[in-house]
This record gives sequence, C-alpha cells and structure tokens, in this order.
Amino acid sequence: MSETQSFQFDLLARDGNARAGVFHTPHGDIQTPIFAPVGTQATVKAVTPAQLEEIGANLVLSNTYHLYLRPGADLVAEMGGLHEFMQWPHPMLTDSGGFQVFSLADMRKIDADGVTFKSHIDGSTHRFTPESSIAVQEKLGADIIMSFDECAPPYDRKYNESAMARTHAWAERCLRAKTRPDQALFGIVQGGIFPDLRTQSAEFISSLGFPGHAIGGLSVGETKEEMNTTLQLLNDVLPKDKPRYLMGVGSPEDLINGIRRGVDIFDCVLPTRLARHTAAMTFTGRINLMNATNAHDHRPIDEGCGCYTCQHFTRAYLRHLVVSKEMLAATLISIHNLYTLLELVRRSRKAILNGTFDQFADDFLEHYQSTNAVSTPTTNGANA
Amino acid sequence: MSETQSFQFDLLARDGNARAGVFHTPHGDIQTPIFAPVGTQATVKAVTPAQLEEIGANLVLSNTYHLYLRPGADLVAEMGGLHEFMQWPHPMLTDSGGFQVFSLADMRKIDADGVTFKSHIDGSTHRFTPESSIAVQEKLGADIIMSFDECAPPYDRKYNESAMARTHAWAERCLRAKTRPDQALFGIVQGGIFPDLRTQSAEFISSLGFPGHAIGGLSVGETKEEMNTTLQLLNDVLPKDKPRYLMGVGSPEDLINGIRRGVDIFDCVLPTRLARHTAAMTFTGRINLMNATNAHDHRPIDEGCGCYTCQHFTRAYLRHLVVSKEMLAATLISIHNLYTLLELVRRSRKAILNGTFDQFADDFLEHYQSTNAVSTPTTNGANA
Repeated sequence: MSETQSFQFDLLARDGNARAGVFHTPHGDIQTPIFAPVGTQATVKAVTPAQLEEIGANLVLSNTYHLYLRPGADLVAEMGGLHEFMQWPHPMLTDSGGFQVFSLADMRKIDADGVTFKSHIDGSTHRFTPESSIAVQEKLGADIIMSFDECAPPYDRKYNESAMARTHAWAERCLRAKTRPDQALFGIVQGGIFPDLRTQSAEFISSLGFPGHAIGGLSVGETKEEMNTTLQLLNDVLPKDKPRYLMGVGSPEDLINGIRRGVDIFDCVLPTRLARHTAAMTFTGRINLMNATNAHDHRPIDEGCGCYTCQHFTRAYLRHLVVSKEMLAATLISIHNLYTLLELVRRSRKAILNGTFDQFADDFLEHYQSTNAVSTPTTNGANA
Repeated sequence: MSETQSFQFDLLARDGNARAGVFHTPHGDIQTPIFAPVGTQATVKAVTPAQLEEIGANLVLSNTYHLYLRPGADLVAEMGGLHEFMQWPHPMLTDSGGFQVFSLADMRKIDADGVTFKSHIDGSTHRFTPESSIAVQEKLGADIIMSFDECAPPYDRKYNESAMARTHAWAERCLRAKTRPDQALFGIVQGGIFPDLRTQSAEFISSLGFPGHAIGGLSVGETKEEMNTTLQLLNDVLPKDKPRYLMGVGSPEDLINGIRRGVDIFDCVLPTRLARHTAAMTFTGRINLMNATNAHDHRPIDEGCGCYTCQHFTRAYLRHLVVSKEMLAATLISIHNLYTLLELVRRSRKAILNGTFDQFADDFLEHYQSTNAVSTPTTNGANA
C-alpha cells in the first residue's frame, strides 16, 4: 500500500452517539453527516451538476460496475477522470462493483480469488478481483474508493460466515493493491444480522488502518429494527476518529436512525428513483404525485421547502407533468427529493452542533409516516 | 371583437427586407427576430424555466390541442393561466389547435362550422370551432393567440382554395369571438405554394386589422425553394408595420432565409426533438452524438458556443449519456440546440441593427451544411 495523503477527519461535536465532523478530501471538505446522491452512470439521473450544486450537494457516488462496462475506465481516465468527465468538481466516491456484481444472481460465479460475471448490457463475460476493482477505481479517480467485498443475504448464517471471511481477505488485498495517494480507501464491515459476526468483522476491518469504514449488508431485506440494532452495536466497535459510511441507505427515517447511531455518510438511489416513479419525499412521508387528489392542488410538494421545485411549481402542475409522462417531472421531483435529504442532514448537523439532536430526531420520527417496516435493496446491478 | 390593448410593434431597423423590432406584450417585450422554443404540454421538454432563462429564451409557445385535452383549459385557468401554471413569466404564444387537429388524419372530420376529432390519448370525441378555439386560448391566457385555420397539403390546388376560404371565414369569426384585451390575436395566411392564392390570402387577412400576421402551411412538405419564394411574395403583400410569424419553422438555414424575407417570429419543436434523438445543431450543420467518432472527443459540441452544455461537457461525455440512454442527454443537448437557435436570431438582430445582415446571412449559408432540401412537418398532433 502506498502512503496515503492525510484524509483527516475532524470530529467537531458529539451529541449522544450522533457526530458532526469534517472529512477533508482533495476535492474539498465533506461536512458530515452527509447524504450522497448517486450518479450510477456518471450522471445523477435527470439532474445537471449545476442543479446539484444549487441543491447543496457535495459528495456524489458513482458505480464502478456500470462505468467499467460503459464507457470503460480507460476512457474515463483518458478524459481526465470522473470529476472532469461528469463535471463534478466536488468530492466523489466510487463503490467497488462488488454489490452490483453479486446482485446479478445467476449471471455471476464467485471463487476465492474474485468474481466472474456477465454484463447486463450485452452478456459478455468479465472478471473482478480485489486488485482489478482497485485498478478500475484508480482510473476513475474518486476521492473515496471502496474495498471489494461480498454482501450475503442478511439471515443466512453460513453464507455470512464465508462472505465475511472473503471480505476480510479481500480487504487486505485491496490495501496492498492501492497505489494512488490522493484516494482514501474505505474498508467494509459485513456479517448480516448476526451480532457476533458484525463485532468480529468491525474489529478485524478496524485493525487494518483504513481512513474510513463502511457498513455493508444493511438495507438488503432485514427489518428496520435489525438495522438499528446492528448500527448500535457497530457504533461501539468502530473507531470514533474515522468516518462511518452506511452504504445504500437513504430513507429519511433511516438517515435519522443512522445519524443517531454514529453514522456520518449515506448514499442511496431512493430519492432519484422515487422521483422517476412519481413519488415525492417530505419530512412527514411520501406523496404520490400521480394521485388525482393533486390535480387541483395549488400547494407545492412541501410548503416549508426551499428547493427550486417547491419555490415555483404546484402539485397540480407536477401531476400534469407526471400524467403526461414529461421528462421535466423526473427532474423537478429529483431536485425536490435530493434537497429534502440534504436539508435533513444539514438540519441534523446543526442540531448536533447545538446539542439538540435528540429532540430534533424525536420530533422528526414522531411526525414521519414510514412507508414500510422492512428495508429494501435499492441498488441492484442492472437497473441502479 | 373587444378593444385590444395596444400591442405595439416598433420597427427599429430594416436591412434589405430583414427587420429588427420590438413587440410589446403584457409579459414583456419581444425583441425580433426571435425564435420561440415549443412547450407542447406546458413544458419545453427536458428543460426547466430557469434553464430556458439562462439560454436567453423569451417567447415560448404552447399547444392548445394538447392542453385542451390534458390537463384541460379550465384547470389551467383555475391555476392562474399558462404563465403561472408552467412558471414562464415572459411572453407566451398559443396556437389555435387547428394544425394539430388536421394532422390527426383519419381521426377528424371537417365541416364549415369546425372540426370534430378524436383524442390521440383516449379516442374520445371532441369538437373545435373558431369560437371554441378562442375560448380555450382565452382560458390558457397566452399573450399572443392564433386564429383557427385549415392547413392544406402544399401542392393540392383545389384543397388549398377551399382551405383558404374556410381560413378566411374562420379568421373573421375568431376576431368576433375574442374578448380579452390583454391578448393579441394573429391572423393566418394560407394558400399552399400557389402565388395567386397566397397573395389573395395575405391581402384578405391583412384587411381584417390583426395586430400581427402568421404564415401557415409552410414547412409541411414543399421544397425549401418554394418556401423562400412564398416568403418573398408575402413580404411584399403583408403590412410592414406589424410582426410576421412563420409557424413551425426552425432549422438554422430556414431562420436565416426567413429573416432575409421579412419574418420576425419563428417556432419549432426541431431543436428539442433532435436533442431527444441525439442530434446537436451547430452553425455549420448537425452532429449525431451517438456516432462512435465522438467517443474520445475532448471538444464540446461547438467550440464557439457559450451555452452551459458547451461550457462544461465534452462530446465524449455526451456520447456516453446518449449510449447509456440517460435523461441528462436530452436536457444538455436541448439546452445547446435552443441556445444555438437563440444565438442565431440574436446575431441576426445585431447584424440588422448594424446594417450588415446580408453579409452575415451569406457567410452563414456558405458554411452551413443543409440536412435536406425538402422542408419537413415537425409539429404533428400526436407526438409534438
């Protein structure tokens, strides 16, 4: 492993287990807690970088699996790397490709050395190893890159034991493979819903000296209570002086519950995917804009919201766009949904700095109408 | 006909037959010559009003046929009219619904009083008359509204004679039906490619006292030479002190040729439709971004262009978006195409004011690679 530039994490305040911090990267500071919009194919779907900046987005995630297949990591490198290619000059994160490859189900075969898989685009055969995942992520050039891991179904103990062992071995190989000093490689904790495995995994991964730690294998079908229990447990095991990243989680109540249990970074396709399926996120629940009750509604999605969409457009207009299958619907609802999650983490951070997070979180959860009690996988390979 | 607020047209300069002027409307001044982006269903597809303002758009067109069917003129009126509904606080124009209804082919039946047609959405039966078209356009509330007319195939003399007679009778009925003083009703000249019919139509329509005149029935299949000949003829017949609007025309060379023959206003779905089909418009021709030659191209679409897209994104990135079927492609290429046409009319206006338009037009046409010699209908009812 090369010497890594200092990716310093300054912990500014703690309120219970909730934390407010700053993670320094070559493309700017990340004020935590933070939510990262997902730009699967080097674009946050239906939203321009200028609109993302206006929303107040900072960290953006992109997917190694997708970019490896199309347009290819060499092309992205030739175009100056991902920041330059997609014109996001702020911090970026790439996943390892692992989760998406494993989501391909019968189109992939795992062995101790790596994974052979078929492209969802053209069926061609490819192979990822810890080393090749790092090599691809180095070509893409994000500020934060991820270890290649294996994510098992949450309730299968045997599978979780072997996936965890593989994840640990691969984490060490990723560390050895890494060469770029301007990228922070995060290790990933696995172990399903099993407290002993989670503890073992967090302890092992923490021992390797990563500048940050990710929590994998949550929001993949376990209950919200099991997710929270696991986060509570990991909060006590993971080192406090490094950022924690809960992968693929992004419903409003999951953000609040995660922040309450010491999580600093979140990402999820949920806000943009819901937007494309006509659903708006608010601080009190979801609104399906297709619903006829919106047809004559003069109100914005959320009267308290400061986003471009809510500052200009009525629910009646948004419903018209949705019913008419107009592309502008996805853009306007995506802007609103992303703004809502970013505003939620901004308000959480402020509350943590003020020492009022518990009250803020209680108030939020009391008024929030949860959509489902079981977490749902939201980053499948083929259609993320 | 009610008394109409003065929709004054100030002719600032003439250069040959080309004109630079200002048309004053309740929602602001229109600097002519101007190109109007089309917002068929109360949205310029894939582009926000803020992006349209950034492009420098001013006049925006929306379609009566589409809005009448969905969401309905009463709903738009209830929401404060089209400007408020779609959040375009600048000048707007609605067509009469005629062209789109006639484009429905076997789904409509014309009589002396109006047209009965079936909705392309659900097959339900509806009827437009000159009076109902004006009533719908008054509910929508655009600054410029259009007479209900009949557009015939360009080479069918018999059909053009009867369509012209009907258009004239309907123009008088539209004038009588109009009640809102804050809308300018334009009359429409028909007559296909037949000089005597065109002259007759322009003379009759001009005699009715409309504050502006539109040229219908061009860009519907005639040759570009026939279009130019017709425009040249009409330039001599139509009154010089009122704006002339060439309906549904928007290729770069057609704009230049139209301005050269005294046209002040243009609209067309071409720039946004081409964008959704991966084609970029430039001052020298079209670029298909799907083409593999763009895969490694570091250049923007047009190195001289000041639009958001060209200021930020490479052809390689745009090709990646196009190949990956990302919605952002339509947004970024639409922004560029609209900017290109708006920049073309801005430069034309400047040249007219400087007395250098002829040179400007010659230079432009010399370097422009035309895509086809026959004009093409671009505003069909069902898919405009």
